[in-house]
Amino acid sequence: MSQLEVGVLGATGTVGQQFVRLLDQHPWFSLTWLAGSERSEGKRYTDAAPWRLGTPISTESAKNIVQPPVPGQGPQLVFSALDASVAGELEAAFAAAGHIVVSNARNYRMEADVPLLVPEINPEHLGLVPLQAKRGWKGAIVTNPNCSTVFLSMALAPLRQFNLRNVTVTTLQAVSGAGYPGVPSLDILGNVVPFIGGEEEKIESETKRILGLLKDKQGNGQQAVEPHPVTISAQTTRVPVVDGHTESISVSIDQGVTLDDVRHALTTFRGKPQDHRLPSAPCHPIVYAPEPNRPQPRLDVDRGNGMTVTIGRLRPCSVLGYKFIALGHNTVRGAAGAALLNAELMKAEGLL
Amino acid sequence: MSQLEVGVLGATGTVGQQFVRLLDQHPWFSLTWLAGSERSEGKRYTDAAPWRLGTPISTESAKNIVQPPVPGQGPQLVFSALDASVAGELEAAFAAAGHIVVSNARNYRMEADVPLLVPEINPEHLGLVPLQAKRGWKGAIVTNPNCSTVFLSMALAPLRQFNLRNVTVTTLQAVSGAGYPGVPSLDILGNVVPFIGGEEEKIESETKRILGLLKDKQGNGQQAVEPHPVTISAQTTRVPVVDGHTESISVSIDQGVTLDDVRHALTTFRGKPQDHRLPSAPCHPIVYAPEPNRPQPRLDVDRGNGMTVTIGRLRPCSVLGYKFIALGHNTVRGAAGAALLNAELMKAEGLL
Amino acid sequence: MSQLEVGVLGATGTVGQQFVRLLDQHPWFSLTWLAGSERSEGKRYTDAAPWRLGTPISTESAKNIVQPPVPGQGPQLVFSALDASVAGELEAAFAAAGHIVVSNARNYRMEADVPLLVPEINPEHLGLVPLQAKRGWKGAIVTNPNCSTVFLSMALAPLRQFNLRNVTVTTLQAVSGAGYPGVPSLDILGNVVPFIGGEEEKIESETKRILGLLKDKQGNGQQAVEPHPVTISAQTTRVPVVDGHTESISVSIDQGVTLDDVRHALTTFRGKPQDHRLPSAPCHPIVYAPEPNRPQPRLDVDRGNGMTVTIGRLRPCSVLGYKFIALGHNTVRGAAGAALLNAELMKAEGLL
Amino acid sequence: MSQLEVGVLGATGTVGQQFVRLLDQHPWFSLTWLAGSERSEGKRYTDAAPWRLGTPISTESAKNIVQPPVPGQGPQLVFSALDASVAGELEAAFAAAGHIVVSNARNYRMEADVPLLVPEINPEHLGLVPLQAKRGWKGAIVTNPNCSTVFLSMALAPLRQFNLRNVTVTTLQAVSGAGYPGVPSLDILGNVVPFIGGEEEKIESETKRILGLLKDKQGNGQQAVEPHPVTISAQTTRVPVVDGHTESISVSIDQGVTLDDVRHALTTFRGKPQDHRLPSAPCHPIVYAPEPNRPQPRLDVDRGNGMTVTIGRLRPCSVLGYKFIALGHNTVRGAAGAALLNAELMKAEGLL
Repeated sequence: MSQLEVGVLGATGTVGQQFVRLLDQHPWFSLTWLAGSERSEGKRYTDAAPWRLGTPISTESAKNIVQPPVPGQGPQLVFSALDASVAGELEAAFAAAGHIVVSNARNYRMEADVPLLVPEINPEHLGLVPLQAKRGWKGAIVTNPNCSTVFLSMALAPLRQFNLRNVTVTTLQAVSGAGYPGVPSLDILGNVVPFIGGEEEKIESETKRILGLLKDKQGNGQQAVEPHPVTISAQTTRVPVVDGHTESISVSIDQGVTLDDVRHALTTFRGKPQDHRLPSAPCHPIVYAPEPNRPQPRLDVDRGNGMTVTIGRLRPCSVLGYKFIALGHNTVRGAAGAALLNAELMKAEGLL
Repeated sequence: MSQLEVGVLGATGTVGQQFVRLLDQHPWFSLTWLAGSERSEGKRYTDAAPWRLGTPISTESAKNIVQPPVPGQGPQLVFSALDASVAGELEAAFAAAGHIVVSNARNYRMEADVPLLVPEINPEHLGLVPLQAKRGWKGAIVTNPNCSTVFLSMALAPLRQFNLRNVTVTTLQAVSGAGYPGVPSLDILGNVVPFIGGEEEKIESETKRILGLLKDKQGNGQQAVEPHPVTISAQTTRVPVVDGHTESISVSIDQGVTLDDVRHALTTFRGKPQDHRLPSAPCHPIVYAPEPNRPQPRLDVDRGNGMTVTIGRLRPCSVLGYKFIALGHNTVRGAAGAALLNAELMKAEGLL
Repeated sequence: MSQLEVGVLGATGTVGQQFVRLLDQHPWFSLTWLAGSERSEGKRYTDAAPWRLGTPISTESAKNIVQPPVPGQGPQLVFSALDASVAGELEAAFAAAGHIVVSNARNYRMEADVPLLVPEINPEHLGLVPLQAKRGWKGAIVTNPNCSTVFLSMALAPLRQFNLRNVTVTTLQAVSGAGYPGVPSLDILGNVVPFIGGEEEKIESETKRILGLLKDKQGNGQQAVEPHPVTISAQTTRVPVVDGHTESISVSIDQGVTLDDVRHALTTFRGKPQDHRLPSAPCHPIVYAPEPNRPQPRLDVDRGNGMTVTIGRLRPCSVLGYKFIALGHNTVRGAAGAALLNAELMKAEGLL
Repeated sequence: MSQLEVGVLGATGTVGQQFVRLLDQHPWFSLTWLAGSERSEGKRYTDAAPWRLGTPISTESAKNIVQPPVPGQGPQLVFSALDASVAGELEAAFAAAGHIVVSNARNYRMEADVPLLVPEINPEHLGLVPLQAKRGWKGAIVTNPNCSTVFLSMALAPLRQFNLRNVTVTTLQAVSGAGYPGVPSLDILGNVVPFIGGEEEKIESETKRILGLLKDKQGNGQQAVEPHPVTISAQTTRVPVVDGHTESISVSIDQGVTLDDVRHALTTFRGKPQDHRLPSAPCHPIVYAPEPNRPQPRLDVDRGNGMTVTIGRLRPCSVLGYKFIALGHNTVRGAAGAALLNAELMKAEGLL
């Protein structure tokens, strides 16, 4: 199979760097086009923004010259790590010009004709893509959820079979989720900040859409996502951790479902990425950690190369039913890796 | 008023040092007796264990010679910062010998005849003290709750009037709560540990007792605490913070109670410590922080000299009713300061 | 003594907030005028910039309305916490208009007619002030050194008597020294950054000036500072500490000077602030910590209300002579507290 | 080439776990024997001590049953991660029984007949091994230096050609260097501890030995190490970093040596590990980072799989000559990886 050329919009930010790292030596995709803002244009990639990941950048990517983000230029498939402040217009312009924009930005996630995709959960939402033609776009936009939403959705998806009704979640989120420069050190060293702007709303609305079903609501053949009826209440906090969001979750499901039923549902969860053996797919989307004090960011965040969600401490909750802890890598499974898996799924399904 | 001599059992640990700090220049109590384990006996206090608080120790306390913990020796009033592994036997021996033991240890908290006291909430539980005579004790034991329990209890106490039924809480706890050497740095630097042994059980059971009423259950004049019927589900985590436990709380109360009602109940909450103007009592046991990103350990932990609980982010919870964040100083209001306030209350009520 | 009205330029930044905190209930000065940038003008002080210190702000200061920084307005004595990018022009304008500007900014520190003052070391440098009249200023500028320079200078001043010749210093600096937002958390959480722009040059040049003598160089009665001949080599690093710069120092002095001589010189060091009993002066400008593992930021930074430099681990250095560790509070003795002590000295000496 | 069986003494500690990780899928060595203390004997390896590294352990190693450390049992080649308190006797017993003990413990490092090896620097020190026969040992002990010593030695080795005379070094050391439980979090969160027991002495003495030459001192054919005449003065501190020791170094060398000479010497440094292409050898033992703010633990510690020392900020030192920053991975190149490279060198040289 010859390699497909791909590009990255917003390549110099925190998520952009993760795209560059994950695309290095990718078996299917070849990264040939890095686009950045005016400030970065024409510079060598590593001169435009210092590389801030612990894994060294490949020499080839380092030398790439940052391009202006001009629709129609660059490969057909572009990943977007754009900031929400510019993603709205720019992604639309790229989609209109015929690009497939696989985006991590929040702007189009809740649009009726745009898939908000977690490949293990709702691959059929790709069925929305043809609707985008009505916008006059020759290309399309496909999105992945907000970081903390991905991990919650993956933990809840296997529980839908048990009549999932209510969920409370408190997140303990890493600073890399806020980009760079992001959170000032004076705010977070030895501290907890119990607020992340817009995060709770995203968790509460995006999760329902991800868990929802694609339906022909009006009986006219036009597909739409019907949100899952689960009610979700989120409290989000920032903690002094570099990578890895921890989530304390309680769920109400049908009485009679045993703890073993729940654990079995979690650990056997898998989907199309595993069926297709997609390059970025972990063998196990969810791993259950049996130790009493896990998952922990420092020990579990890199499981499955950052694409696995680790769950632990499953036990009864006297208020809702069951409770547990979930953890995921916020800039891999929660951002760049999520988009990459989306693109791999589209490729495997013949949509690229 | 002449000063009352007091002592501290377990004076060399983290909580012991807080007792020493808080008793320095206390208007009512004079600290004259510091007791420690065999290893510390006969040494100058600061030689027995390095002082680990940022506030310098007074010269007088520093020079105190650590005494063996022999019942009958030392002042009548002794504060206990003993480890649970030894507090059971030793506190009983001191109570039997006629001491009033105002203890931070967990051992007697759930005993039917021992007050588990938060002076603003349940001062009438001191009515249990006379029952201890049946044990053959000439003295008595009075306890304060586990650190994370105090803050939750104080946040819930004003809500009892609204028919408080269900509570979920996720804690983000500071390392000083684990004593010294306590949490290894390799476990917590840049990390979250989603487990604290025994903590969730303590929160779930102690809180019900604290919020409960003292009743003559059997109609024979014998008092007992009837636990409050609220159901509590706790998830506890350790975060890289030195002092200050943050708690993410959701509560279900009667429908129709408005957000303003709840905030008003929290901010007007006060009790006997404020009526008596006890030396360690904060003017406001609970302060409501109006900023959208508060409370935070670094900014709010020392409010009211560490005796105030700060609450913020009160808003509706789509699952339970209302949700908010609470924060308190775990070694002050959550330990040594709590015991000190208990002793001050007893003194003010003529029980010492 | 009636109180002198004072103002603060650049009141909303990290150092500005320390000025406000330290001036609260000051026995000599009354803070009546807070000036800020256009963005802050007309707002209540705490609305213009969130209060970021652990000690609560006084209600009075919180309500103060931020003024535009217009020379001629505000009290005669103004403290400057201005950023270096604007301090050059603005401080000159205030001095020209007759204000005494007691500044923490770096802009005028190395000017020949401006005192770079550490009151315990070189109070006679105030003799430069009259020279500023030649600039046509009706007022004057007096400066304090860069934070890490203050602690080094105080540690070296008592050693001048031993023929101080060479000094190497490696600093481990706290993030509050970089202001707000300052150091991004992604750069410093669990990390060390071995570079602080311009810091090494400031340490190497400012220290020589502070330790220098005021002389009539040209015999014409005109005073000038002759820098001390010591050679200083600095390496500066940033570490994940909130407050408190640690410095690892080696010095070469005359052979034959014993370790006891050095320690005695350090611990008996004092100067005019102690003679005058200035309100912000610590009893001991330098405290020697005898413990083998001190000083430490968390334990020693608040000594003398943040105005004391703690020194420890004095021992022979096989390369230079002696080596030791010094620690100081970078936003108190290293910034706002330093300026305040300068103003108190001027007041005590009748210069205000 | 068939694989050589190897074992690990002290396998359950922090360094022991690094041995297990690094030996997993090693091309030359096959880890078949894990020995631990009485407390661990007979347990599965991961039950004996929780795995504390971010990289998951291989299933095979996890299931290994921990053996008692009985000399004569286990493979001929054993790596020692023993604590110094037991390494003295136990390593001698293993050497006596015929094992080749490649040790990270400090006990035999300074013994006249034991190589203190850094393979790029002093491979000829292996010539001491035959002398150990005089102890009646059928096997031998070969050691690697203390963690912070390795990085300093590697930075200094290329400078010996310039007549290296004086060195001052201040270290900023990670907590993983202290093992587990090691440094209590209360001591290091947001703090600096300017003392590490015995560390400065080890740096000052071990480095001279490593840089020394093997000579026939008495002309009788008996080899001995003549320590290098360089004088070293160290100050060591602990900082809140998980992995990676940073060192601030100044050196005096011959005048006339230019900055380019020094940088060239550092970047072209290599030795037998590179000649032999040993499996654990980095292509470049030293990498020079050109960015103005490097090296940094978070960004550079894993270079060369943790076997590369990164140096940056080379510039003149007004006191000694040149100064720079060095960084290395303390539990890889500074411990387990160092021992592994020693064994690989011995194997390549036909000594195993």
